[in-house]
Amino acid sequence: MEGVDYLAHERNKAQFDVDEMKIVWAGSRHAFDVSDRMARLVASDPVFQKDNRAMLSRKVLFKNTLRKAAHAWKRIIELRLSEEEANQLRSYVDEPAFTDLHWGMFVPAIKGQGTEDQQQKWLPLAHKMQIIGCYAQTELGHGSNVQGLETTATFDPATDEFVIHSPTLTSSKWWPGGLGKVSTHAVVYARLITGGQEHGVHGFIVQLRSLDDHMPLPGITVGDIGMKFGSGAYNTMDNGVLRFDHVRIPRNQMLMRVMQVTREGKCVQSNVPRQLIYGTMVYVRQTIVSDASSALSRAVCIATRYSAVRRQFGSQDGGIETQVIDYKTQQSRLFPLLASAYAFRFVGEWLKWLYLDVTQRLQASDFSTLPEAHACTAGLKSLTTSATADAIEECRKLCGGHGYLTSSGLPELFAVYVPACTYEGDNVVLLLQVARFLMKTVSQLGSGKKPVGTTAYMARAEDLLQCHCIVQRAEDWSKPSVILEAFEARAFRMCVARAQSLSKFPNPEEGFAELSADLAEAAIAHCQLIVVSKFIEKLEQDIPGKGVKQQLEILCNIYALNLLHKHLGDFLSTGCITPKQASLANDHLRSLYSQVRPNAIALVDAFNYTDHYLGSVLGRYDGNVYQKLYEAAWKDPLNDSVVPDGYQEYIRPMLKQQLRNARL
Amino acid sequence: MEGVDYLAHERNKAQFDVDEMKIVWAGSRHAFDVSDRMARLVASDPVFQKDNRAMLSRKVLFKNTLRKAAHAWKRIIELRLSEEEANQLRSYVDEPAFTDLHWGMFVPAIKGQGTEDQQQKWLPLAHKMQIIGCYAQTELGHGSNVQGLETTATFDPATDEFVIHSPTLTSSKWWPGGLGKVSTHAVVYARLITGGQEHGVHGFIVQLRSLDDHMPLPGITVGDIGMKFGSGAYNTMDNGVLRFDHVRIPRNQMLMRVMQVTREGKCVQSNVPRQLIYGTMVYVRQTIVSDASSALSRAVCIATRYSAVRRQFGSQDGGIETQVIDYKTQQSRLFPLLASAYAFRFVGEWLKWLYLDVTQRLQASDFSTLPEAHACTAGLKSLTTSATADAIEECRKLCGGHGYLTSSGLPELFAVYVPACTYEGDNVVLLLQVARFLMKTVSQLGSGKKPVGTTAYMARAEDLLQCHCIVQRAEDWSKPSVILEAFEARAFRMCVARAQSLSKFPNPEEGFAELSADLAEAAIAHCQLIVVSKFIEKLEQDIPGKGVKQQLEILCNIYALNLLHKHLGDFLSTGCITPKQASLANDHLRSLYSQVRPNAIALVDAFNYTDHYLGSVLGRYDGNVYQKLYEAAWKDPLNDSVVPDGYQEYIRPMLKQQLRNARL
Repeated sequence: MEGVDYLAHERNKAQFDVDEMKIVWAGSRHAFDVSDRMARLVASDPVFQKDNRAMLSRKVLFKNTLRKAAHAWKRIIELRLSEEEANQLRSYVDEPAFTDLHWGMFVPAIKGQGTEDQQQKWLPLAHKMQIIGCYAQTELGHGSNVQGLETTATFDPATDEFVIHSPTLTSSKWWPGGLGKVSTHAVVYARLITGGQEHGVHGFIVQLRSLDDHMPLPGITVGDIGMKFGSGAYNTMDNGVLRFDHVRIPRNQMLMRVMQVTREGKCVQSNVPRQLIYGTMVYVRQTIVSDASSALSRAVCIATRYSAVRRQFGSQDGGIETQVIDYKTQQSRLFPLLASAYAFRFVGEWLKWLYLDVTQRLQASDFSTLPEAHACTAGLKSLTTSATADAIEECRKLCGGHGYLTSSGLPELFAVYVPACTYEGDNVVLLLQVARFLMKTVSQLGSGKKPVGTTAYMARAEDLLQCHCIVQRAEDWSKPSVILEAFEARAFRMCVARAQSLSKFPNPEEGFAELSADLAEAAIAHCQLIVVSKFIEKLEQDIPGKGVKQQLEILCNIYALNLLHKHLGDFLSTGCITPKQASLANDHLRSLYSQVRPNAIALVDAFNYTDHYLGSVLGRYDGNVYQKLYEAAWKDPLNDSVVPDGYQEYIRPMLKQQLRNARL
Repeated sequence: MEGVDYLAHERNKAQFDVDEMKIVWAGSRHAFDVSDRMARLVASDPVFQKDNRAMLSRKVLFKNTLRKAAHAWKRIIELRLSEEEANQLRSYVDEPAFTDLHWGMFVPAIKGQGTEDQQQKWLPLAHKMQIIGCYAQTELGHGSNVQGLETTATFDPATDEFVIHSPTLTSSKWWPGGLGKVSTHAVVYARLITGGQEHGVHGFIVQLRSLDDHMPLPGITVGDIGMKFGSGAYNTMDNGVLRFDHVRIPRNQMLMRVMQVTREGKCVQSNVPRQLIYGTMVYVRQTIVSDASSALSRAVCIATRYSAVRRQFGSQDGGIETQVIDYKTQQSRLFPLLASAYAFRFVGEWLKWLYLDVTQRLQASDFSTLPEAHACTAGLKSLTTSATADAIEECRKLCGGHGYLTSSGLPELFAVYVPACTYEGDNVVLLLQVARFLMKTVSQLGSGKKPVGTTAYMARAEDLLQCHCIVQRAEDWSKPSVILEAFEARAFRMCVARAQSLSKFPNPEEGFAELSADLAEAAIAHCQLIVVSKFIEKLEQDIPGKGVKQQLEILCNIYALNLLHKHLGDFLSTGCITPKQASLANDHLRSLYSQVRPNAIALVDAFNYTDHYLGSVLGRYDGNVYQKLYEAAWKDPLNDSVVPDGYQEYIRPMLKQQLRNARL
């Protein structure tokens, strides 16, 4: 039955123009073209095959990743790909590798923190991959708290060098990707000591390995930190451990754009504002939010297609069973995730604009929006990665037993995704940063300082404290203004209530610590509002294509009303809506699910994912699930022989009652 | 620093008798002794070592499991272990294996569904492991819906045999553990056809493999279905695929306790009540709830100990940082899970009593409590497994970055645990069964039929619809009666509201389908009430030991009030409590966290887990985390050589700009 499209009847049901939705999803026609071209390039190249990944031992897996990385780089050079194309190609190769850190952290660190001279020296080497770099910040005993790092960089004026040293076991660098086996260089973060005094944590370019034979340089101990969650997944990456025994580097390998150490060992601030670093943070977090929508949409695509293929129950007398996507329990779990994929896509797109805006302001020395932009990106990173990690696992469960097979693609997608909740800022730590900013914003409301950006709504304080939701019928919940007001009122009232609780503590820091769990909830409410409001803003734009906007309106409503249902306690306890209105929202949600149902397959087709990228038997475009599951099973190494290795030693003696004498 | 107890200061803080708590956790002094003895036996035996499991290839991993299973059986025979001891030993070996299915499903199926003659023939063989059996029910296309199975067993009166056949691809047996490579026999579920008529699904004992050379018998195709979630984890199990091509078995291999097929091919019901099967279901689900508390407590033990070792932030001027367990955000995520571990333990213990009660009633032909017992166990299976799966992943996140390492033990614990949400009844399907029972119970309230068992509270309908929570100060929430009433009122009001919504549908089945997501929520509310009420009942017993009961009272309150906070929308929308009372509950919860804090380490010590069983560097009893993490890293195969395999082929050509000519 090769070539048959088992989902054709589903695709025929769609009430909108899928090709136009693909453009909306990609962001522009150009973006779609690049993405589509690169996805096909990767999918058609046998070197990038990945369906056997879970069965490979660590060493073979890792060697295979080295091969893919080299091949990708070769293709990038041969085809003279642009940076945009190269990034897309690497993302469709879909395998964590040292190159992620080289391009994503090492190069940007030098660009952001290196002087002009340093950039001129190091960037050409890095751009040609004549050196391979990583980003060595976290230590065995130190993650979130960068100021707690223990590695030291002591200036020796006698030789004009820094001495990099790991004074304790817990100061061992730990986790940096690409460090364990591949990187020749690293940007190492260490406490600067000069003239016997500490001057905070700074970055230093340190060569780790010989460029001749790849052996670690004297004084350097380096290795891989071992296996991580899942099979395949992040085990393709050589996250590393690194210890320094008084390693000397020239003074000019400290990244000195913001602060310089002179020949005499004096610290001199440059005229470059420290705030520049926030620009990089906004950039990195924007990419993380964008990655969240990619990972989430992959999982949703798999679960949606399989839910249309899978049938269970519902037949009398042995007839055909009901597609599981037709069950309201399945819809109420799946469709909010589909809506979230689109919501995160659009808020990610908006963050790209925010990054440009912040960059332009920084260049004009306008720092006024920085704290807000920083809080906003921190919060969205936290919100979208937590939601995505949970959603991937929910999608796996929505695929029932078969979702547990590696061939479903979902276990590896989960295992490779979840570290996003921890890296680049632990999600709870980030929420507390948002909360701190919100409390400050609320406390300044009376002072005439106008809240900016995503907190601008707080200027309507009186309104938001008094407003009553006007919903009287279920359909009233389809109005964007009604939803927006409810979410604004909820977020603001929660912030105000927390601020009031805080004010009862004599010591504000103690209060903040004591109430931190409640404060994190207020931060979540604020961040959810951002996502909802950016989705609504997107819908205010002109969106061409038959039925496209209507579908997005439905998804926007689902996203918001599902959140309202999940966080109902917030909305009710702050009096933003009544129990009756909550019940109407639920009724409306159910009718929205029915509206999505015929469009569900087309809505995931719009992601335009190749079967290669999805990497899932359950999510195949053609829906030919059972035949391919069956075929995939026989490829397992255990099926190399009918009688398993170990039968003679362990099974046969058991069956023959001869264990007593067996040597096991 | 070997031998130092880094957590000694934490243990010294405990305000209760840990040894007495160990007895409470185990259930009795006898149970503690057996468990303690078996745990040490396994931990001290090098054959049962498991810390390298994640690094083994599938074949080596599987062979190693065969060795452990044979060794365990040898030890069981040599030491003449009792059934209780043997079960404990197998559970501490802590590795899914074919023996789980042999003892847990194959033997019980024959006991429960076989006639006296069949039991006499097959059980001695199984008890000595002269045959190894599995339980072949689910098919590639059929899981939850047993009545949808496609495999056929057609009676042939000419030869007095059944012909077992797989008519379609989707009828392939798929998932049964132990089937793929080991089992010689299976209980196969198939549609019985005799005289051209279908007679529902029944079990048949089918030999799969030769007892001489282990080759599959003619007409049988059997193999492994391939890799599953995680490394190590369930990949030690040979979940299998099985197809029949007209395989013939004697008529007396149909399990005929309830229904018999005569020599002439007639179906005759025996006088054994069909309800007997529910007894088995109650038993199996009780073990699943008990397993949930084991898995959850392991994860909590790891996260709690590591949270006391790990320090981050909080120091000014480079002093010692704050233990992360002292942060309220950490406490508010961790301590409810600690409380849940105890709550699930006690409800599991109660289920053991329920099973005995049901069994005795069945023997007396009293079926009156069966539907309630069935609903109750279905709901508790769903509730505890879903909560435990989420909790293990939450514990992993609570360990920050290091929780992502396999050496933390948490990734494998998660991967090996999650199928519990799907097997033995998908958790959502089970909730709907509970909801159906609850709707029936509510509808019969007026009719004079008294609700029994865990639904007995519904008899106080009027009370529960009118009662008002009396809480005025935070401490009022420490009263069990207050908590119980709030949970009863919430569950009952949600049920009544759902019943009213249902009654508006002309077709009740359509209504049930349409409202299923809301109905599942009512079922959850009811099941949470059961857990809370059984915890409270436990505390009404005499519990010896200094401070033991006080600690349990705190945990019980935390369990309940955390649920109240998470499901606040339920409580507020049904008017069971006011927003003010909700806020007081939150205040009380925070003070309870402070009370648990000094006892946290001792409360996880009370689980009495060996370091072998925990299998976690982060959860080590002595808290010597960093040294052991560092040592574990170097054991990874990637660290066999300093320069990785693949350097010459892939890294060097990249660095030397020689990729263009390289063959990759």
